[in-house]
Amino acid sequence: MNGPDAIDLNCDMGEGFGAYRLGSDEELMPWITSANVAAGFHAGDPRTLERTVTLARRYGVNVGAHPGFPDLVGFGRRPMALSPEEIRTDVLYQIGAVAAFARAAGVPLVHVKPHGALANLAVKDARVAGAIADAVAAYDPGLILIAYGGELARAGRARGLRVAMEAYADRGYAADGSLLPRSRPGAVLHDPEAIVERAVEMVRTGSVVSADGVRVPLAVETLCVHGDTPGAAAIVRRLRQGLEAAGIRVRPLPPAVG
Amino acid sequence: MNGPDAIDLNCDMGEGFGAYRLGSDEELMPWITSANVAAGFHAGDPRTLERTVTLARRYGVNVGAHPGFPDLVGFGRRPMALSPEEIRTDVLYQIGAVAAFARAAGVPLVHVKPHGALANLAVKDARVAGAIADAVAAYDPGLILIAYGGELARAGRARGLRVAMEAYADRGYAADGSLLPRSRPGAVLHDPEAIVERAVEMVRTGSVVSADGVRVPLAVETLCVHGDTPGAAAIVRRLRQGLEAAGIRVRPLPPAVG
Amino acid sequence: MNGPDAIDLNCDMGEGFGAYRLGSDEELMPWITSANVAAGFHAGDPRTLERTVTLARRYGVNVGAHPGFPDLVGFGRRPMALSPEEIRTDVLYQIGAVAAFARAAGVPLVHVKPHGALANLAVKDARVAGAIADAVAAYDPGLILIAYGGELARAGRARGLRVAMEAYADRGYAADGSLLPRSRPGAVLHDPEAIVERAVEMVRTGSVVSADGVRVPLAVETLCVHGDTPGAAAIVRRLRQGLEAAGIRVRPLPPAVG
Amino acid sequence: MNGPDAIDLNCDMGEGFGAYRLGSDEELMPWITSANVAAGFHAGDPRTLERTVTLARRYGVNVGAHPGFPDLVGFGRRPMALSPEEIRTDVLYQIGAVAAFARAAGVPLVHVKPHGALANLAVKDARVAGAIADAVAAYDPGLILIAYGGELARAGRARGLRVAMEAYADRGYAADGSLLPRSRPGAVLHDPEAIVERAVEMVRTGSVVSADGVRVPLAVETLCVHGDTPGAAAIVRRLRQGLEAAGIRVRPLPPAVG
Repeated sequence: MNGPDAIDLNCDMGEGFGAYRLGSDEELMPWITSANVAAGFHAGDPRTLERTVTLARRYGVNVGAHPGFPDLVGFGRRPMALSPEEIRTDVLYQIGAVAAFARAAGVPLVHVKPHGALANLAVKDARVAGAIADAVAAYDPGLILIAYGGELARAGRARGLRVAMEAYADRGYAADGSLLPRSRPGAVLHDPEAIVERAVEMVRTGSVVSADGVRVPLAVETLCVHGDTPGAAAIVRRLRQGLEAAGIRVRPLPPAVG
Repeated sequence: MNGPDAIDLNCDMGEGFGAYRLGSDEELMPWITSANVAAGFHAGDPRTLERTVTLARRYGVNVGAHPGFPDLVGFGRRPMALSPEEIRTDVLYQIGAVAAFARAAGVPLVHVKPHGALANLAVKDARVAGAIADAVAAYDPGLILIAYGGELARAGRARGLRVAMEAYADRGYAADGSLLPRSRPGAVLHDPEAIVERAVEMVRTGSVVSADGVRVPLAVETLCVHGDTPGAAAIVRRLRQGLEAAGIRVRPLPPAVG
Repeated sequence: MNGPDAIDLNCDMGEGFGAYRLGSDEELMPWITSANVAAGFHAGDPRTLERTVTLARRYGVNVGAHPGFPDLVGFGRRPMALSPEEIRTDVLYQIGAVAAFARAAGVPLVHVKPHGALANLAVKDARVAGAIADAVAAYDPGLILIAYGGELARAGRARGLRVAMEAYADRGYAADGSLLPRSRPGAVLHDPEAIVERAVEMVRTGSVVSADGVRVPLAVETLCVHGDTPGAAAIVRRLRQGLEAAGIRVRPLPPAVG
Repeated sequence: MNGPDAIDLNCDMGEGFGAYRLGSDEELMPWITSANVAAGFHAGDPRTLERTVTLARRYGVNVGAHPGFPDLVGFGRRPMALSPEEIRTDVLYQIGAVAAFARAAGVPLVHVKPHGALANLAVKDARVAGAIADAVAAYDPGLILIAYGGELARAGRARGLRVAMEAYADRGYAADGSLLPRSRPGAVLHDPEAIVERAVEMVRTGSVVSADGVRVPLAVETLCVHGDTPGAAAIVRRLRQGLEAAGIRVRPLPPAVG
């Protein structure tokens, strides 16, 4: 969808709950193009959902569902051994909840991106990946599935879904294209200029230079940016400006044409 | 929608949660025509939701959302002082969740009927009623709102919603058309034949004879039947057969055309 | 317990949940003497509970249970129509949970103070107040019940509980001793010096001058300070220093002897 | 504690939630001697807790805590990857909750037995087992830990806890003393007489004959009986009568002396 001259910036949004706030959605929304909206299982509640979707609409940001494990106290970051049926129905439920707020706001639901431990399992476990893709396809085969790769991308394509490959401009890569473990030096980039440089390289060349100095091909249609770190909004703003200064358009993933 | 020769039978369905079962959905579904499907706040979980919607589809039963207060341990029966914004967004969320399973099953979401304490408040409190009707209209103005009367019916009509008036064939009525309090003699009918007789009278005449012997006009397009009492399925079956023997068609509320 | 030369400062603590933080417990704990620890229903989770109790122990701060309505998304601020049995058992459960962490930390559970909407109802509704006091007495008749007054204080005393009367140094009072509604001018004091002055007056004289200029008697053994407003820690620190400068000892409520 | 002439019968109890009931506690309680009381995370709520503890007291049945994973919709049967700190604090919280109802009822909390997926992990994973044993010892080193064996028994003993070994009279055993997988023939005994015979053999001989015909030593101080299968109460009653007819006393595990 996006090629070497355009890119989408996606970010997890709406991760508060009731009186609790997390991240800085208001500061981030102007700079991103796709919002992954928490759906109530690992974070998010109906008021937060509505506020987030309304904010996304104001800035022309795509609305997507961000389903997670049913584990609010663990923020969906703890692996749970759910059956494929449990994953499929949990994801379907959460897509419906986000879709209701998109519908009421008069904007389409464009994409789905799994959260936390569910997303991590979906990279490696074909049954988890298949269950997620089944839910997306059952709700609407025109939805875009954002995937970092692995089994989830495969499962999405096998069901005829449009899969948007994502990459991380602030992470180091291994020679096999996987993310460097966070324990390794160079695993996380903090310097905004280095992040911009890496993002431009990824989009322009469809590849990244690994920690070992190997150039690794890397399909990338959307860059994942983080909203819950200190200074997140400033980094995302700098990233967007750097991409645009390099002649790369920052735009939402195009909705399905049908 | 329904007149003196046809009636809908609606029943709360899918009120289990995880390992817990409540009611006898499998035995009831063949005899009713509208299922009010619990949406996960007062009861219901994604697996129960899917099972219930699939069962409804098998018998050609209309699928509707049955939103309640966010109070699983209280089964949505305890009044909560929520703001209109909280009610509206809670209801919208729950409509979306049920709609997702209807969509995946290839059946329309036809109606919405509030549950328990939320429904009771909606009869008397215009702000609660308005918040519910706002959520329904925001999701889909073609949805039918099932209301027992009072503020909820008024709020639905004020927003242009199709309101289906419901009545209870197994309850006694006061001269003002309200239900007799459960503490009064004759408040609840247990004899299946008396229930059938009352139901036929209600549909045929659009009225009911009150405990005081006064004939009270009563608009009725759908009869609410209870699924969680002993012998419920036998009573509902008898009710349906009695209605049909009296020449009254038992059929789902017609989905919106516009 | 405390007289005109000593006072306790109590503050709600441990009101985060999972990844969510609320308030600034680390900054406040050095200055208060009683921590009302959220118990998991309106806020708080087992890790937050343990962290809060450990922090209280480090500063010699009394640990108390802060039970609320089972309404995490509403932070326990929304009135719920629970039966006395439901309130009593919900409170008993929450006392037990906090007590477990106190016991594991080797400190006593000293007091109980209800939260939010539950506390507000307990001032006016004798059944709610009685249910709370029943739970406290059933767990341990030596526990101190912190009450702002009204039915809760009455119910506690009727069951032989030690009731510690609390007041608010940052709030304006009406001539009948009740708090001024927040909509009225002078309802909330923001100037730290005015708060200190009022606190010293309350403790020294056992009275407060109302917004109408009437001196109102006011039993006060503990002052409630707020931890979730901007600059809260600085105000509490200033309050404590001001009290001590005026010769008033700031010390925890003495645990029960019998 | 119990030897070849006496045995304890433990059973999971109080596993309803709100309007939901599970099992038949009233019918089972007269025949068992230890109740593992659900604590609110995988099942159980404050009313159910109180009712269960009161019922146990009436029949002189020991009250124990039955902590599980925080997964109500999954009934605590789905493995979750929690950190030792998360398990320890979750278990401590749940012990405190059950202990509060025991204390209010004037009975001691005697034992702790983990539930479902948490219990299964504790057999094989020393970190999970250690976290559970840490919570028990932190609450009260005099509590008895009921363990099927493996790492949990080891972890309990390493912390000086009294560990009561449990066995299943209705399950087949492999030659290494582990339970036969449920997929194997003979894995579950349904005939009450065969269950009684196996139970008497286990208690009398401290061993069991495996599916391969090997006699396997088996320490057993308490037999776990199941309450959620059809005819459960009749089987437990028959089991108790059979044990007593064989001269084996059925009695609760003796509470800690000090």
